[in-house]
Amino acid sequence: MDFKGADILTTKQFSREDLEKIMGVARGLEKYALKQETSELLKGYVMASLFYEPSTRTRFSFETAMNRLGGKVITAVGMEFSSLYKGETLHDTGKMMENYVDVIAMRHPEKGSVDEVARAAEVPVINAGDGPGQHPTQALLDLYTIYVEQGKVDGLKIALSGDLKYGRTVHSLCVLLGHYDVELVFVAPEELKMPEKITNYLDEHGVKYTETEDFDGAIRDGVDVLYCTRIQKERFTDKSEYERLKSVFVLDKAKAMTGKSDMTIMHPLPRVGEIAEDVDELAGAAYFRQARNGIAVRMALLAMVLGKV
Amino acid sequence: MDFKGADILTTKQFSREDLEKIMGVARGLEKYALKQETSELLKGYVMASLFYEPSTRTRFSFETAMNRLGGKVITAVGMEFSSLYKGETLHDTGKMMENYVDVIAMRHPEKGSVDEVARAAEVPVINAGDGPGQHPTQALLDLYTIYVEQGKVDGLKIALSGDLKYGRTVHSLCVLLGHYDVELVFVAPEELKMPEKITNYLDEHGVKYTETEDFDGAIRDGVDVLYCTRIQKERFTDKSEYERLKSVFVLDKAKAMTGKSDMTIMHPLPRVGEIAEDVDELAGAAYFRQARNGIAVRMALLAMVLGKV
Amino acid sequence: MDFKGADILTTKQFSREDLEKIMGVARGLEKYALKQETSELLKGYVMASLFYEPSTRTRFSFETAMNRLGGKVITAVGMEFSSLYKGETLHDTGKMMENYVDVIAMRHPEKGSVDEVARAAEVPVINAGDGPGQHPTQALLDLYTIYVEQGKVDGLKIALSGDLKYGRTVHSLCVLLGHYDVELVFVAPEELKMPEKITNYLDEHGVKYTETEDFDGAIRDGVDVLYCTRIQKERFTDKSEYERLKSVFVLDKAKAMTGKSDMTIMHPLPRVGEIAEDVDELAGAAYFRQARNGIAVRMALLAMVLGKV
Repeated sequence: MDFKGADILTTKQFSREDLEKIMGVARGLEKYALKQETSELLKGYVMASLFYEPSTRTRFSFETAMNRLGGKVITAVGMEFSSLYKGETLHDTGKMMENYVDVIAMRHPEKGSVDEVARAAEVPVINAGDGPGQHPTQALLDLYTIYVEQGKVDGLKIALSGDLKYGRTVHSLCVLLGHYDVELVFVAPEELKMPEKITNYLDEHGVKYTETEDFDGAIRDGVDVLYCTRIQKERFTDKSEYERLKSVFVLDKAKAMTGKSDMTIMHPLPRVGEIAEDVDELAGAAYFRQARNGIAVRMALLAMVLGKV
Repeated sequence: MDFKGADILTTKQFSREDLEKIMGVARGLEKYALKQETSELLKGYVMASLFYEPSTRTRFSFETAMNRLGGKVITAVGMEFSSLYKGETLHDTGKMMENYVDVIAMRHPEKGSVDEVARAAEVPVINAGDGPGQHPTQALLDLYTIYVEQGKVDGLKIALSGDLKYGRTVHSLCVLLGHYDVELVFVAPEELKMPEKITNYLDEHGVKYTETEDFDGAIRDGVDVLYCTRIQKERFTDKSEYERLKSVFVLDKAKAMTGKSDMTIMHPLPRVGEIAEDVDELAGAAYFRQARNGIAVRMALLAMVLGKV
Repeated sequence: MDFKGADILTTKQFSREDLEKIMGVARGLEKYALKQETSELLKGYVMASLFYEPSTRTRFSFETAMNRLGGKVITAVGMEFSSLYKGETLHDTGKMMENYVDVIAMRHPEKGSVDEVARAAEVPVINAGDGPGQHPTQALLDLYTIYVEQGKVDGLKIALSGDLKYGRTVHSLCVLLGHYDVELVFVAPEELKMPEKITNYLDEHGVKYTETEDFDGAIRDGVDVLYCTRIQKERFTDKSEYERLKSVFVLDKAKAMTGKSDMTIMHPLPRVGEIAEDVDELAGAAYFRQARNGIAVRMALLAMVLGKV
């Protein structure tokens, strides 16, 4: 795809070539994300940070990316949109915003809402999460983290664990991994299995995967990457089943050390007990670096859609 | 008036010469508002964006203006002011803010509140709307839009339609148009007629106006500018009367095309059905450009009160 | 202490030498705080402004300091943290934030919370108030104000009046004044006397102090500095006692003029009647300058912890 002027709306819009390009640009901009050098690449550009639903983490990542490339940011969060909501269509919001800024990063609780703004606005729109819909920059930073931590993506054995049924991040990551020669291991209780729409997609793309409920066994069997997610109580009708599983799907240092010595441990964060703090000491504990990688990846997307690389 | 260091509080403070000056400066800065060039005119200056009442649209317009001229912004919105409210007088808020910033853009739900801050603060204060009071920058961008779209203001026939009784924007625009040789047509149902304080003002300024309830007829009769506003349900005791009028005062493409071929169509936005989306296709549909013009006009005011032009 | 990379968490961490250093740097940066010159000293640096509890005044002071030294700011306030709260530990918040920014200014309603983030984050953290805990930058700007207004600190007679029992600012200021050769006068009703932990601290540091309930007398007796604070109704079980004292502890111009002609009058603001507006006319009325001094002091701290002075 031609990135200049493009909207970034879904993981499904990328070819493998696109993914390689994004990761390459992110790699090149990483020195600014790591605060080793300063940049004025996006000087004179303004980004609107429209977070109809608060997400301080994602918002800060976008705003840091823009700021560290020399750009500026105008922000609106949460409640404040009451006034915008007041009867205005998302179409009109898009037409309005294109006057103000050069690029829009937008999060909204309703699926499809970001697409609607993107259709109306002539400036590029980046989806920062539209409820149960897409969150493409999260998937891109996950892929980038695998690439940076392991030095490659092809040939890896990657386990995704926890809530694979409802977990938006693991679904989106699978869409991207469909372009690679990887072996996937889905580790989830029966109630939270990976849905067919994802396994079908992987079948079509010729990606091999296995399914198991045995978290400890999956680690012991040796995977290159372990991507953990949270199991949420509200998903279970049988609460005692939840209590049992909650403790099974907890990674601590001892358990992590039964896996490959260079196993990369990932998590979209925030974690709430799924990964014990003693895991932080391990060289493979990549979840904070993963969050940090979001800055380089968002820098890359901003620079690319603004036609500055 | 001498703009350097001045407060911008009300449409009544401007002479025709002042208006011409603001529009001239706005014209000169428009290339920055249109993102064609970047500017550092206000580098080193900081604006406080104090929105006691959220208005994302107006706030973004001010902040974009400041940012695109190289200035910086500190922002506080809505709820957050609970702490400031905590017993502090607006006088003290003004004395406090003058320490922090070079200029203040302020919106507040209470009439007269912005004046109070302006009296206390030594730095210029720009009224971004004080409840039922004034919203001078809106009127200035409306006037500027007429000027830019039609190439002049004198000699034009301008229709204002909808809720002329309570509509703050149409009242403020009339105050500015009082300085021009224009012919006004007030198109409103009996319940929402232009109040006497405005018609008296126009009489004093020798501005001709006619009044009608016939929206379609006013368009067919041929006006250069049609400024639409919303009719709000809560204004009516007889709700069936509201239902009848609501559909009468809707502009669609077919209706718009019965008017002059170069008729400029304006609206303060947000629209909620008063202008159908098919009107957007017309060359004269100026409402999104009107919103965009707010940036150039606010740039002009900021630069002028800071003494940079 | 070595300021580069250091956290600023409590007034207790400073030696007299540290205090002199901060005040010296603040003095040097004051021209930027006073908007007389612009600076790019912190260009390329980004500060996170994390205000879990809104405090527009303190936040604006930090953000103005950062902006006027050429740095950038990303901000999150109040409600928005709901998402961060969602189970994430302050430890993880610190680990997350260190990726985004170069320095953190943080306010939080719970004592010790800022320390927790500081322990986790590798970047410097500045405590902007942790509930009933510490608010070191307020104490530093108070000390700096005394120094600037009176030209020295040693040798001064300083009265602290109002709610000395619960007033966080007066306690913190006492900790700093413990390093100086000053004479203190505590002016408070019996119910709101300075607590022993502070008087013991002063005893240990050899600082002389006297205690009185006579507000008028203390002024007449002649003090170089009068630091007023508010008496809050909720502190009293006997509300009639509150009503009596409230009016006693009010400073007006006439009363102020019974004191030393060059008496410096301070207040942490906001004031709610404790200082009448006619006091503002006096040359010694320093409370708005005191607020302004917060910018220079915070500039100094930011520049020092970032290793730029």
